[in-house]
Order: sequence, then structure tokens, then C-alpha cells
Amino acid sequence: MDYRIEKDTMGEVKVPAHVYWGAQTERSVENFKIAQDINKMPKPIIEAFAYLKKAAALANEELGVLPKEKAELIGEVCDEILAGKLDDQFPLVVWQTGSGTQSNMNVNEVVAYRGHVLKGGQLTDKDKILHPNDDVNKSQSSNDTFPTAMHIAAYKMLVETTIPGIERLRDTLEAKSKAFMQVVKIGRTHFMDATPLTLGQEFSGYVSQLNHGLKAIKNSLAHLTELALGGTAVGTGINTPKGYDVVVARKIAELTKLPFVTAENKFEALAAHDAIVEAHGALKTVAVSLMKIANDVRMLSSGPRSGIGEIFIPDNEPGSSIMPGKVNPTQCEALTMIAAQVLGNDVTINIGGATGHFELNVFKPVMIYNFLHSARLIGEGCVSFNDKCAAGIEPLHENIKKHVDNSLMLVTALNTRIGYYKAAEIAQKAHKEGTTLKEMAVKLGYLTPEEFDEWVIPAKMVGELK
Amino acid sequence: MDYRIEKDTMGEVKVPAHVYWGAQTERSVENFKIAQDINKMPKPIIEAFAYLKKAAALANEELGVLPKEKAELIGEVCDEILAGKLDDQFPLVVWQTGSGTQSNMNVNEVVAYRGHVLKGGQLTDKDKILHPNDDVNKSQSSNDTFPTAMHIAAYKMLVETTIPGIERLRDTLEAKSKAFMQVVKIGRTHFMDATPLTLGQEFSGYVSQLNHGLKAIKNSLAHLTELALGGTAVGTGINTPKGYDVVVARKIAELTKLPFVTAENKFEALAAHDAIVEAHGALKTVAVSLMKIANDVRMLSSGPRSGIGEIFIPDNEPGSSIMPGKVNPTQCEALTMIAAQVLGNDVTINIGGATGHFELNVFKPVMIYNFLHSARLIGEGCVSFNDKCAAGIEPLHENIKKHVDNSLMLVTALNTRIGYYKAAEIAQKAHKEGTTLKEMAVKLGYLTPEEFDEWVIPAKMVGELK
Amino acid sequence: MDYRIEKDTMGEVKVPAHVYWGAQTERSVENFKIAQDINKMPKPIIEAFAYLKKAAALANEELGVLPKEKAELIGEVCDEILAGKLDDQFPLVVWQTGSGTQSNMNVNEVVAYRGHVLKGGQLTDKDKILHPNDDVNKSQSSNDTFPTAMHIAAYKMLVETTIPGIERLRDTLEAKSKAFMQVVKIGRTHFMDATPLTLGQEFSGYVSQLNHGLKAIKNSLAHLTELALGGTAVGTGINTPKGYDVVVARKIAELTKLPFVTAENKFEALAAHDAIVEAHGALKTVAVSLMKIANDVRMLSSGPRSGIGEIFIPDNEPGSSIMPGKVNPTQCEALTMIAAQVLGNDVTINIGGATGHFELNVFKPVMIYNFLHSARLIGEGCVSFNDKCAAGIEPLHENIKKHVDNSLMLVTALNTRIGYYKAAEIAQKAHKEGTTLKEMAVKLGYLTPEEFDEWVIPAKMVGELK
Amino acid sequence: MDYRIEKDTMGEVKVPAHVYWGAQTERSVENFKIAQDINKMPKPIIEAFAYLKKAAALANEELGVLPKEKAELIGEVCDEILAGKLDDQFPLVVWQTGSGTQSNMNVNEVVAYRGHVLKGGQLTDKDKILHPNDDVNKSQSSNDTFPTAMHIAAYKMLVETTIPGIERLRDTLEAKSKAFMQVVKIGRTHFMDATPLTLGQEFSGYVSQLNHGLKAIKNSLAHLTELALGGTAVGTGINTPKGYDVVVARKIAELTKLPFVTAENKFEALAAHDAIVEAHGALKTVAVSLMKIANDVRMLSSGPRSGIGEIFIPDNEPGSSIMPGKVNPTQCEALTMIAAQVLGNDVTINIGGATGHFELNVFKPVMIYNFLHSARLIGEGCVSFNDKCAAGIEPLHENIKKHVDNSLMLVTALNTRIGYYKAAEIAQKAHKEGTTLKEMAVKLGYLTPEEFDEWVIPAKMVGELK
Repeated sequence: MDYRIEKDTMGEVKVPAHVYWGAQTERSVENFKIAQDINKMPKPIIEAFAYLKKAAALANEELGVLPKEKAELIGEVCDEILAGKLDDQFPLVVWQTGSGTQSNMNVNEVVAYRGHVLKGGQLTDKDKILHPNDDVNKSQSSNDTFPTAMHIAAYKMLVETTIPGIERLRDTLEAKSKAFMQVVKIGRTHFMDATPLTLGQEFSGYVSQLNHGLKAIKNSLAHLTELALGGTAVGTGINTPKGYDVVVARKIAELTKLPFVTAENKFEALAAHDAIVEAHGALKTVAVSLMKIANDVRMLSSGPRSGIGEIFIPDNEPGSSIMPGKVNPTQCEALTMIAAQVLGNDVTINIGGATGHFELNVFKPVMIYNFLHSARLIGEGCVSFNDKCAAGIEPLHENIKKHVDNSLMLVTALNTRIGYYKAAEIAQKAHKEGTTLKEMAVKLGYLTPEEFDEWVIPAKMVGELK
Repeated sequence: MDYRIEKDTMGEVKVPAHVYWGAQTERSVENFKIAQDINKMPKPIIEAFAYLKKAAALANEELGVLPKEKAELIGEVCDEILAGKLDDQFPLVVWQTGSGTQSNMNVNEVVAYRGHVLKGGQLTDKDKILHPNDDVNKSQSSNDTFPTAMHIAAYKMLVETTIPGIERLRDTLEAKSKAFMQVVKIGRTHFMDATPLTLGQEFSGYVSQLNHGLKAIKNSLAHLTELALGGTAVGTGINTPKGYDVVVARKIAELTKLPFVTAENKFEALAAHDAIVEAHGALKTVAVSLMKIANDVRMLSSGPRSGIGEIFIPDNEPGSSIMPGKVNPTQCEALTMIAAQVLGNDVTINIGGATGHFELNVFKPVMIYNFLHSARLIGEGCVSFNDKCAAGIEPLHENIKKHVDNSLMLVTALNTRIGYYKAAEIAQKAHKEGTTLKEMAVKLGYLTPEEFDEWVIPAKMVGELK
Repeated sequence: MDYRIEKDTMGEVKVPAHVYWGAQTERSVENFKIAQDINKMPKPIIEAFAYLKKAAALANEELGVLPKEKAELIGEVCDEILAGKLDDQFPLVVWQTGSGTQSNMNVNEVVAYRGHVLKGGQLTDKDKILHPNDDVNKSQSSNDTFPTAMHIAAYKMLVETTIPGIERLRDTLEAKSKAFMQVVKIGRTHFMDATPLTLGQEFSGYVSQLNHGLKAIKNSLAHLTELALGGTAVGTGINTPKGYDVVVARKIAELTKLPFVTAENKFEALAAHDAIVEAHGALKTVAVSLMKIANDVRMLSSGPRSGIGEIFIPDNEPGSSIMPGKVNPTQCEALTMIAAQVLGNDVTINIGGATGHFELNVFKPVMIYNFLHSARLIGEGCVSFNDKCAAGIEPLHENIKKHVDNSLMLVTALNTRIGYYKAAEIAQKAHKEGTTLKEMAVKLGYLTPEEFDEWVIPAKMVGELK
Repeated sequence: MDYRIEKDTMGEVKVPAHVYWGAQTERSVENFKIAQDINKMPKPIIEAFAYLKKAAALANEELGVLPKEKAELIGEVCDEILAGKLDDQFPLVVWQTGSGTQSNMNVNEVVAYRGHVLKGGQLTDKDKILHPNDDVNKSQSSNDTFPTAMHIAAYKMLVETTIPGIERLRDTLEAKSKAFMQVVKIGRTHFMDATPLTLGQEFSGYVSQLNHGLKAIKNSLAHLTELALGGTAVGTGINTPKGYDVVVARKIAELTKLPFVTAENKFEALAAHDAIVEAHGALKTVAVSLMKIANDVRMLSSGPRSGIGEIFIPDNEPGSSIMPGKVNPTQCEALTMIAAQVLGNDVTINIGGATGHFELNVFKPVMIYNFLHSARLIGEGCVSFNDKCAAGIEPLHENIKKHVDNSLMLVTALNTRIGYYKAAEIAQKAHKEGTTLKEMAVKLGYLTPEEFDEWVIPAKMVGELK
């Protein structure tokens, strides 16, 4: 491979001849040979950096510390990054310095050198139009850019992927809930037969869970809108022009069309990532909901002949390489695996968040890597589960009816007529003798057949249907 | 010991003669011999049951399904429970049925039998004035009472213990932040010397963390105000009078003076405890903050001679059984241990929350046990840390000044004057040769001594002080 | 209350007149008002201290640094502690200094002052026969005593409670496995009907899980046998007589009749508790197994009429306060709640273990508190689950037969006769048309009825039975 | 793009014309659009499948159920997979069916169709030499192949990457420990000055931690050697020739040169993955150790002027984009981030492991994905940390000496001379008045200057050096 020589403050480094990155990126490639093929810094972070570098250039220009030409050139390269034209210029991995400095410098170098080339320069020119530190990184530090990129990437992922994915599933479940509102079925508590409810009522619980989850995510967005940018090295804003933090946050808001603001307290914004911890607390809540919902769906659809079998879910693929004709609840399985992943990611994020020291938390890359992973998995997982499973759910009326009609727990309707103890006696004896509740109730002399038929009606035991 | 015979629907049980509980409580004592001396059902749950049993009696009376005398008698016993007069009547442990049915029945039995005795009856009377199921549990099921008790207990603990504890620490740290606002000190990023800030600024980050944490907790309260009561067995409200759910929630709100309402969706309220999961997500966020703050405090106070030693914390006890005169940051240690506990409790709660099935989540006791543990530990831990440590923090000016004066990172002030690369050269060479920045800057010919003194002033590197 | 005045190196403290503890214990009571009614230092730790204080006294005597009378007096009080006579003398909580210094001093004080009283002295005597630091704590530091107590308590709990509890359940499941070895039933994969196996085979998997878990626990015991004692303050063994570490470990081994040895490396033994982390890794593995087993049991026993209903489990108590006659798998619920607790405790222990610094880990109390909690819960939980549930499991032959006879997955037996694709066609069409496999196989012309009967025999599809 | 039509038992599917995969793989690509660019099924799993498919073919041939030509052809394609020639033929992701069926079928299809092409056939031929199910998957099910691949991949990663990486770091730390054995330094407990030890002793603790961790990993290997293969659909071994399980395990052992054996109990081997849970319990223990070690290294190297500064670590890259000349402990940061990731992965694995049901655990892909992630991160992380950091650690003698000479905790040496109380008085007063211990000891009249010099010698306080 051809190389060129790049320099940074520590000396010379051989860099592949045609890449836009420079010495510091290359050092990181050499110094961190850890999972390089599978753990690249997430692309949403690179994109977030493009937004913020452009915004910083614009703010620096507006505040008179960067010439217009430089600001425009920086913006031009950032637009290329956002357009995906420079995807192969960001080789670094998550397992680097905990401040993300090297990814910040990777962006600084690529923007500077690509900008130079855009203006007709050569990568081998000693002096370049843009300097990675003094121009592209102007009024910035890794310590405030990386957390800013974290918030931008996290917020965008939540509003563009996570929330829409959950809402899509919520909408389907809500429609199913309405469609199934009259389908009376047996309830199950402790996995055991209980009093009846309707299938629509059962699904309404899922809808309510997701609505609460969406609210929890939305509650966490406010903290994420606060941007660290302007705090620079330790939060004091050293080497920034007056008013810069407010201006640059406004620029980011304009570029992303999202309601970002400058963080009121920059010391927290560098030293802690509680906003990430808190927002992932909402994501783990949704993961908990999805685990419940997907588990219910697979158990309700279990069978086809020796399970519960009360709902049909679509057959998407042959289910077994050995058992012919087998169909499995594969979307439920993917979604519950995602839930398990998110619950583990939560712990990683907690530990990272708890282990910051003094003016800087240095678990930034691992925190945002896990956050974006969770947020994307939930969003895309909900869409997949929705489109390939939930949307096709239908009641299996025959089984549903059989189960509810057989249930001994219909006896509960008699509590207010004959008291809990006599009702229990009916159920226990019917169970022991394998008869129906009605037969036993009459046999014990507690009710006439007519009374039983009048009082024990599953469809009247489900309350008011909304 | 003397015994009497009690009966339930499964038959006779020998019960200690003088206790107010009955057959079902006794069965649970016998059936669950697991950690009986250390894992009693938390007292706040028993108290929450007292509120809800009284409220249910009042609602039942108001809706005409329970005679006034019975309602009053139930209320009278509930008041005794709240006054702590019956503390020894609740022997059951967390490790019982996952619906908490047995604790619900424990309360039902104690209320019924104590009520009977209050009216002059004997525990051995065959017929009693109040029936545990048909009167005390009227219009209720374990499935809706236990989650209601969970929300009441959780909400009360948060607003009475957790939030006030955090606020108390927040107030102290805020006062310290103001008091220390002019104390210029070295910043540390990556544990390494960085540009200066003030001690007050550093503390302002902690204040901001706690303020965000308080907001996160408060955001989660709304979901906790929703009460399951009225859903009874599976959420349909079977065996409740019309309008009961709204009335009973209002009664609970009146009795507790807290803004409880009936849950819009009772199916979720029985089958899932996402409100607990979500609220504990806020608690774990605060745990993460406290870990950071307490770690900083112990490291800043480390020494006395070979550590960082920039702050004084109170000496509360001899620190060592072997090293005479040793003093340790023991409150920091208690608080970080608490944080570790809360982060583990979070996982237990997540797993419990995720593992509900169909109409009922049966991890109720373990979830609320862990929740109340965390909420109380954070509240009481903050008070202890505040009173015995934070309130006594003072700057150690001599060390602070020595550290900031020596720092090579003051060179950052020169970036905007001579560029990042020359500044780096100064710092690196000064480090290598063990000299001051000023000496090296002059030696390298980049600045005059006068320029250095004019440009490199720690107190001017800390930004605007608020 | 009456008080007396006690002194330590920091000055005077008022102590309740009649308690055996002294100034340092009392300071801790005052300084750590955190969950004092529910989080006492676990009793097994106090007992472990009794063993080690006695062993240290004997070793000190043997090595000539403690007079025989003092050693014997110390031993006498330790025996009282082990006999449970001084249980009310240990008021401290988990949430104290992270080295457990205060609990070490609590023991030192109680042993010294109780010893003095045993010899006829008064608690108010200025000079006492035994000095807490110079005699009872001789050749010791909190930093090596507390981790030694951790290992003693953990090891004892594992071999006395955890392992026997698991073995008891394993033995029952093994007996059930053998008893049910010929009961052919449907298999279920993905919750869906699969090829048959026997109920005994199914249970043999549980046995194998527990056997592997027992092996994992036993693998972790070796690390726990290593005792820190003799390392004193930082691992160097300062202020101990030559050979002390080996002698004192031998004394502890003799007193406890357990194979304790001195740790080869004392620096690790103070600064890290990987032995606890590792051993709890085995406990969490068992928790995972128990969750699986208990879940299977509750699902297999679900019904009674609308579930899977293939096994009977004992009815231990009325299951519902509202649904008469309901019986629930309550032991499964307690055991799965325990599993959830253990999995959370694991995280707490990991965080504690990871957060030691330099020469000392200061998460000792929270680590051992969680460890002992898990170890006890698993042991007692297995016994409860065994005695009240597993021991009574019986097959419900009627349901089992119905399920296996109906299964479409019996078609798998035809793969090697007619190929996977034709077999799949039979199953799919039989499912769609609601017929039997045999009818469809014949209808499609792939087999004669005689061939079907010869080839598709559930009892021949279960392999060799062991 | 060009397509061809493929068929499976559910019908026709359009597949890209030139890929070797078939209908079922393509269905999975379409059905699971979740994180497709970042969460491919890990390559070690594909390689493990190549081993096992070849081994199965050989075993089938040996047992007379597969013709030699087919077996050889299958083996030939498997060798191509192992040589990396077919890397682009495995497009599926982790988030698929929880049994990994689709990845098993992906391999079956690629082996069958590539084999056909190798023999001169066309992808569009209706009949092919090898059938994915009837030949390549012969005597197998996804349910036993995927867990077999899990164990092969996990075992290989542990012995090829994880253990060598840890050993490499252990060896370096051991060499450093020996080299630094005479360097007397201050000890620190609770972050506070304590009695001295040597730097070599401090490092010996790290060595001991890693040795224990290695032992824990090795203890867990035995369970991983047990292979599920031969259990087929539910563990009974349906559709396998007699003796197949033992033969195929032997073939795998021969091909991989690793000590694999057939699992004694196949029901566990399909339904639970406790071996993965257990082995990851060892990995999390190592993660805990690495967190401690890397934290110590970064704190010991902190400074350069205002930290602890007792060791030098190599400068690998410029540390800051804004603070010129800054160098940071970046390898420590990568390693602690890895530790945080592993601790989170552990929770995911626990939840996955705990949530199997009946005859099959369907969290297989997420479990092995997290396991391999952890095992690789630890291995490669240790190498990186070793080569770029640990190997270059050197003592900074000047700081070390200054710290130990100043320490007040040297007073501990006087305990056995003048008692704990007087020693404490010396230390406390010296601290208060800012003098040396010696001055205060003499001033208080407890020692002569000569006694002090004779008794208080740091180098004599560190015990015997090994």
C-alpha cells in the first residue's frame, strides 16, 4: 500500500496515501486493535459530528473568529459526510479513549484535508487551507463535542426510529384491541384459569403499556436537548468567544430542525451523562413491556394442537430444519432477544455513567454505542414484529370458546350471591369430579339450574367495554 | 404454645391462639420458610394496605354494598395498623406467591378478626362480625389490591423520603457551590491535569446532576398515581359496584393526601408494573449521579499527604483498627455501596417486570421489595452523607493553589495566541525538563515573560462565574 | 435511658449503660442512620468474626504475643457469640464504612468488654482486662479480618445451606425423572408442538442443569478457602508475628472444620473480592437454571382446564381472595422471584467488586450482604420448592396422551422414509384441513394406513431411555 | 438485480441470481430487517457450523446413512467456508428466530448449492446433487446444531483469544511485579494514606487476580466441551443412526483438535445454555479484575503534576484536541469500557439463559453474540492494554519516595511498641500541626529520636518480599 507522512504534536506517522484522515486517526487505528471489524464508532455519531462541526464553523464565523471561506468549506465537507460520501473515512472503533477524542480528531482531520482537496490542494501539501485543531476544532474540545454528538445522535435516533417504531406497533395493537373487543375469552392469572375478559381488553393492556413507555421516552427528551458544546475542555468555555454556546446550539437546532439548546450547566454536561442514563431508563422500561407483550403473543399462539392456541399469527418461514411443517413465533423471539439485549445494555450504560471522575466522564463511546444500539433495536424490532406478526394476529374463535366455556373460575360470579366459601366448594368439587360448575352447583343444592344460567354468563363478567 | 383452629376453603389449620391472623396467613408461614428473619414484607406495604382497605370499606359503604357499621369497624382496625399497634401481626415474607395474595389475606384476616375482638368478640367464635373475604376484601382481589399497595407505598416513599433526602443534599451542595465559586483550582480530565475551573463550578455540576435526577423522579410520579383498584381479578372489575374504581381511588387520595387516581387501563395495571420499572429507572439514574459525586468527594479529599487533598471532609470516627489516627471517607463509602445496591435492584425489577404473563404479573413482592429498598436507601443515604460529610466540606486552599500553579495545562490559554502546535511544544518540553511553562515559553522564543504573565492567568481561564 | 461514657482516639461518646459495645460502635450507630431496622450486618458475618477472633487469639498465644489467659478469655466470649447469647450486641448496618471497620470494632469492643465482665469487672471500669485494639484485634486489621469473615461466612453458607438445598431438589427431580421415564408426551420447542419425548427425559434435563450448577459452585469453593488474615493493613502483614498467617488459617480450619488456608497473595485478598464475584457467578448460573425449571413446572401444570395441564402439583393454599377454588403454582413464583433477586444481586456484587482502589476494596459489606442473601435464598428456596411442590409432582396421563396423539410433529418420523418435503406437505395440509396425519398421508398417496401405523409410533420416537 | 426463483416448503421466493443461499435464507433477510448492517451473525458461529456440517457428513458416512461422494462434497464446501472464501454468503443477523434455525438453513443451503456448483451444476437446476435438509442437515436439527456451534465457537474463542490475551497481560504484570519488588511506596486504603508496601507487591495482587480469573475460565471449559449434536429436535435423537452422537462429537474433536465430547444429557443441551451462562460468569469475573487493575493504573499514573504520579505509562497519542501536550491513560479507558460492556453482556446472557421454555431455549443467537463479544473484547483488550500500556510502565521514583516519606501512617509501626492509642495521638497531632511524626513523637515524650529512627523504617514495614 502507498503511504504518505502525516505529523501531529508527537511526531510523524505513516498514513495510507489516499485517505483523508491524518496522524491522530492513524495512531488510533494502530493503538486500538480491538474488534475493529465489528465495533466501528456508530455512524449516527459521525453524522452528529458533521452537524456540529458545521454549526461550530457557522457560529465561529458569526462571532468573528473564523473567516467566511473557511466556515463555508467546513460546511461543504460536513454536507458530504451527511450525504454518506465519506463513509469509509471513519475507521475508528468504540474501544478508544473514553472521551472520544480520537473520533473527534478523525472528523477534524477528514474535514480539514478533504476541504483542502476540494479547493484543489493535495493531501501531501505541507500547509493546508484548513487546520484540524485551529480551524475545524475551533472553540471546541473533544470534551464538549463528543457529548454534544452523543445527544444529537441519541435524540435523532429516538425521534426518527425508536418512537415511530413503537407507535407503529402501538397503533396496530390498538386497532386489534378494538377489533377484538367483543371476543370473550378466559383470563389467566398465575398461568391458571381465571375469570373471563375479552381479547380486546387483553390487547388494550399492551396498548396502555406502550403508551406509558412512549410517555417515558418523551419525558427523557428534554434532558437530551441540552448540549455541552461551548464548555470546551472542562466546562468553563475556555477559548470560546462570548455567547458562543448559545449561538452554536441555535445553529445545531437549525441544521437538525430539532429543539436543541445549550446546557445550563456545562460541568455536568462533560463530567456526567445522566441524560443518557435517564433516557435509557425509559428504553429499558419499553424493553420490559415488549418482553411481556411478545411472550404473551407466543404463548397465546402456542400449539397448534397441544398449546393454548387462542390466536393465529402469520407463518413467515418454515420453522424447523427437521420437523416438517412446523411454524414458530419467530418475530416474538427476535423481539424478546432484543429486550434481553436492551436490559444488558442498560447495565453497561449505568456502570459507564457512574464511573466518571472529576471534570470528565471517560465512558462516552461505550455509553453511546449501547444507547444507539438499544434505541435502534427497539425501533426496528417493533417495526419487524408489527409488520410480520402483530398486523396478522387473528382470534381462533373455536379454541377461545372452548376454553372459556370450560372454565371453573366462572364461579366467581357467584361470590356476591352465595358467598366466597360456597362458591369455592362448587369449584373444588367440580374440579375433583370432572363435572361442570352448573352440575355441581345444582347437586350441592346452592342454585337452581335457572339461577346458574342467569347468573353465570361469561359475556357479563367482562365489565364495560370501551 | 397454645393454638386455636382456623378454617379456610381448604380445611383446618392450627394457628397460635392469640394472633389475629387466620388460616391463610398461617399456611403461608408454614409453606414459605425462606429468609423469614430478614425478608418480611416491607412495612410500607402493610401500611398501604391499611389505607386501601379503609378506602375500599368507605367506597363500598358509599356505593351501598357494605353496611356502615362494618365499614367503620374496618376503618378502625386500619387506623390501628397505621398507628403501628399491630406490627407483629404481619409475619409473611417477600418470597410467597407472586401476586401477594397471602399478604392481602393476612391483612384481610387481621382486620376481620381484630375488628371482631374490638367489638367484644372472641377469636374462637365460629361466626365473626367481619368476614375476611366477603367483607374486608369486598370489591377487591389480591390482583388489584397488591399493585395498588405497591403504588401507594412507592409514591409515599418517594415523596416522603427519597426526594426530601436528595433535595437536602442538593441544597447543601448548592450552598457549597456558591461559597466556593471563587476558589480557582486545577481541572482534571482523564484523571490528568487539565485547564482550571473553580471549586464552586465543580460542585455546580453535582447540583445540576441532582436537579436533573429530581426531575426524572418527578416525571415518573404520574404513572405511579394510577391505581389498579377496581380491576379485581383480571382487570374487568368483576364483583365491583358501578363507579367503584373512581370512588375508591378518590378515597385513597383523601386518606393519603396524595393525588392518586384510578388507572385508565386496569389490564395493564394488573399484568404489568411498568410504572415501578420506569420510576426505578429514575432512581438508578440518581444512583449513578451519587456514585459520581461520592467518588469525586473521596478522591478530592484523599491524602492527607499523598493524595489529591483539595477538600476537607469531617472526621467522624477512627478509620482503622490498626492504623492509628487514620480517617476515612466513610460516608462516601456508604453512599457508593448504596448506589451499587440500587443498580443491582434495578436488574431484579427489570426481570420481574418483564416476566409477567397474560392477565397478571407474579413478581409483585420482589419488585416492590427492591423498589422500596432503593428509594429508602437513596433518601436516607443522602441525608447521612449530607449531614455527616457534605455539610462539612471545606476547601484546602494551600493544596488547591499548589496544584493549579504547577499545571502545564494552563498552556491552553495560548492556543488562540500562538496556535495549538506551539503551545503543545511548550507544554511537552516543560514536562520533559521539569521546568515551568513560563520558562519554557520564553526559552523557545514564543512569548516574552510579560506576555506570558498577561495571557496565562488561571483566574481568567474559568469563564464567567454565576 | 441510662448511659455510660466510652472513649476512643477521637474522644468521648455516650453509650447505653448496659450494652457491651463501646465508643466506635456507638459512633457508627449515630453516623449511619440508614435502613437500621432492615439491613443489619448479616448474622453469619458476626459468627464468622467469632471464629476468627478466637482463632487469632489462639494463634497469637501460640506465637507468644498474647498471654494464655487473654486468649482463653477472648475464646470464651467468641463461644458465647457462636451460641447466640450476644445477638443483641451487634447493632450496625451494612451501610457503613466499606472496609467493615466498624463491625470489626463492634466485635472487638464486645469481646473485650464482655470478657472483662465475665471476669467480674464492670463496664464502667476505666482499665479493662482486654483492650479492643491491642488484644482482641492483635495481629489484625479490619482490612484483613473483614474479608476473612466474608470468606468464612460465604463458604459456610454455601456448604451448609445452598448446596444441600440444591441437592435435595436435584434428588427429588432425579427420582421423578426415573419414575416418569416411560411417560411419552409431546415435546415443545418455541412453545410449539414438536416431536415426542418422555416426561422423565424432560425432567432429566433439569437434573443435569442442577448437577452442572452444583459443579460450578464447587469449582468456586477453592478460591473462597483462601483467607486474607495475616495481611493486616495493606497486605504486607505489618504487626504480625512470623508465620502468623499460616497458623491463624489453620486455627480457623480447625474451629470451623472447613478447609481454609492462608491466601497466597494477601494484596489481592484485601484489594479485590474476585472470589466472591466468581462464586456468585456460579450462584447466578443456578438462578438461571431455577428460573427455567420453575417456569416449566408452572406452565406444565397450568390449567386446570384451559392450559397445558400435563402435570399435577400440590395445592398448598387457596390461590385467590376473589376467585373461589383457585389454586396457583405459588412455590414456582417464590422460586422465580428468588432467581430474579439473585440476578440483580449479581450486578451489585460485580459493581462492588470492580470498584476497589489501590490496596483496599471498600464495597465489602454490600458485597457479602448480597452474596449471603443469594446463597441463602437459593438454598432455602430450593428446599421450599422441593418439599411443597416438586416432591408432589405427578403426571396427568389423560392430558399427556391427548396432546401427544394429536400432534402433527409426529410426521418427523417420516423424514427418513419419504423426505422432508413430502412430510411437510402432509403436516401442513392436515393442519389446514383439521384432519389427522394418517388421514392426510393416505389421502396424498404417500403411505398406506399400514405403513403409517408401523412408522409413526410416538413411543418409538423418544430414543433410548436411560 | 437479477433474481432466480427458489422454493421451500412454503412456496417460491425470489433470490439474487448469483448467491448460493436459497429460499429460507432469503425469507429471513426479508423478515428481519433489524440492524442488518451492524449485527450479522458472528463469523465464529459460521465457522463452527462449517466444522459441524463436515463432521456430521463424515459421521453419517461412517454410519452408512450418507454416500461417500455426498459426504466429501459437503466437506469440500465446509473447507471453503473455513478458508473464508464464502464470507459474503451469510447475510443473516442475530435478531432472527431464537433457535438459530435460519442460520442453520443458511449454511445448509450454501453448502448444498455451492456443492452442486462445484460439481458443475447450475444454481437454477431444479434437482441438485445435495439437498439442504435431507443431505446437509442429515441427522441434525437446528435445535442441536446451533447449540453445538455455540459451544465450538465459544470454546475456540476462549482458548485462542481470551486466555492468551489475559496470559499475555498477566506475564507482563508478573515481570513488572518482580522488577518493582524493592520499590517501597505508600499504601492507600479508602483512597487515604496507609502503611507502605512495595510497588512490586501492589502489582502482585493484579497478577494473582488474573491467575484466579484464568482458573475460573478454565474451570468453565469442561461444560462447554459437551456438544448437543445428536439430540436433534427435542433431545431424543430422533432421525439419527445409532451411536451417531458419540461419533459426530469425535469427528468435531478431530477437526478442531479440541476436546469436545457428546453431552451426557441432550435435553439440557437444547433447552438450557447454562454452560454459556457459567462460562460468562468467569468472563465477568475477569472483567471485574480488569476494571480494578486499569483503574489503579490510571490513578497511579495521574498527573503529571497534580495527581498521584507514581508510575509512568507510555504516551501513545496526543490526548486532547484543545489542551496542547496533554497525554491520557487511553488504554485504561478502552479496557474499563470493555469491562463495562462485559458486565452488561452478562445480564443479557443471564436473561436469555433464564428464559428458555420446555424443550428449547430460544435466546440462542443473542446469548452467543454477547458471549463472543465479551470473550473477544477481553482477549484483544488485554493485548492492546498490555502492548501499548502495561509493558511500558515504570516507577516514578521521586514521587514515590516523597509520598512514602511524608506519610503519617508509618506510625503504625509503633503500635506494638507504645500501643494503638498513643500512636494515634502522635499521628493526629502531627497532622493537625503539620509536622513530622518524628517531631511529634519526641515532643509528646513517647520516643527518643533514636528510637523513632530505629523503629519506623518504611522498608522494614513491607514484610517478606517474594
